[in-house]
Amino acid sequence: MNKILSDKVIKRLTLYHSILVDYMHKNIEYISSPQIADLLHIDNTQVRKDIALLKYKGKCKVGYKAYELKVLIEETLKFKTVKTAFIVGAGNLGMALAKYDNFESYGFDISALFDNCSSKIGKKINGKNVYDIKELPKMADKFGVKIAILTVPGAFAQEVTDFLVKSDIKYIWNFTPCVLNVPNNIQVWNENLIGNFLQFTVNLDEEKN
Amino acid sequence: MNKILSDKVIKRLTLYHSILVDYMHKNIEYISSPQIADLLHIDNTQVRKDIALLKYKGKCKVGYKAYELKVLIEETLKFKTVKTAFIVGAGNLGMALAKYDNFESYGFDISALFDNCSSKIGKKINGKNVYDIKELPKMADKFGVKIAILTVPGAFAQEVTDFLVKSDIKYIWNFTPCVLNVPNNIQVWNENLIGNFLQFTVNLDEEKN
Repeated sequence: MNKILSDKVIKRLTLYHSILVDYMHKNIEYISSPQIADLLHIDNTQVRKDIALLKYKGKCKVGYKAYELKVLIEETLKFKTVKTAFIVGAGNLGMALAKYDNFESYGFDISALFDNCSSKIGKKINGKNVYDIKELPKMADKFGVKIAILTVPGAFAQEVTDFLVKSDIKYIWNFTPCVLNVPNNIQVWNENLIGNFLQFTVNLDEEKN
Repeated sequence: MNKILSDKVIKRLTLYHSILVDYMHKNIEYISSPQIADLLHIDNTQVRKDIALLKYKGKCKVGYKAYELKVLIEETLKFKTVKTAFIVGAGNLGMALAKYDNFESYGFDISALFDNCSSKIGKKINGKNVYDIKELPKMADKFGVKIAILTVPGAFAQEVTDFLVKSDIKYIWNFTPCVLNVPNNIQVWNENLIGNFLQFTVNLDEEKN
């Protein structure tokens, strides 16, 4: 791909991939765009457009080879490119992400968790160690980790962010409800769960009107 | 608002709101669009466009009254409209969402959690009870709950979804990595954390090229 894919295309391709993984498990060899469209309740032409972006053509009548399409999506979305990240905050959300199904198969390597709570430090979650947050700068440097997943309580979000920036973390996947104040060379990805939820419910209400 | 807001506008408005809440805490009366734009590392004209959608005009030089803008966003995004939901799956992710900072202030009422694990049933998480999933149909009916937040392991996602559909749940906020097969009258909101993450990292790699 020499063009940047839009967020929406990437999200849909990821969903198509989940469907294809399911097809593999069921040993179904072919999948058609209407089958994908039906599962996602989206328009068939949208599915065909997205897959055309991958320069992949299905076979007339039988559709796409599920395995080939799956591999092509994995190449396009760079599942093989390992993305190493630290989870900062070993509370429920941090632990949930450390345990999240199949993150690894997407090239997503959570190498460790960090917390400042002595009752959590030293624990293992899904095979990953929880370290004292004081260790983070040393370990980020040692393993060249530039991505932090921020799952601390909102009250500590900015304070911990300042610490991450000092620790040479360059990308922060922000799961806190706070807007983080960072220098321009730091990229923050706001997960913004509340925004995601409101985006459904607001328009839901509008549709009802 | 008699127009449906785009997802991106809603997400940005939610972020502006977080900034305004922070300004309130710091007793800062006015905020300017460049201040918002700087914090989010986005373009100032974008911020002005979004706020213009709310039909709100700032005062020349001093900017917007933070409190007024905050209230206007709350009205636009219907924070006062209570959205009652069940969390299905009281694992780490379910518990994290039950504890998530200030969900209530966004009109988001998680009234209960459900699980099938006897060690979880009967517990209280952030003041909310964990019930046996068998109780869900009765309680959904009793309290008129139509929204379920699905946080079960992927392996059980479809089975539990079928149960939710039978229980007259109409909207499923899906945190599992699976694509759910549901009838057309059921709306699924795929949180798709992996897609969100890839959307950053894929384009990150593209930008590096």
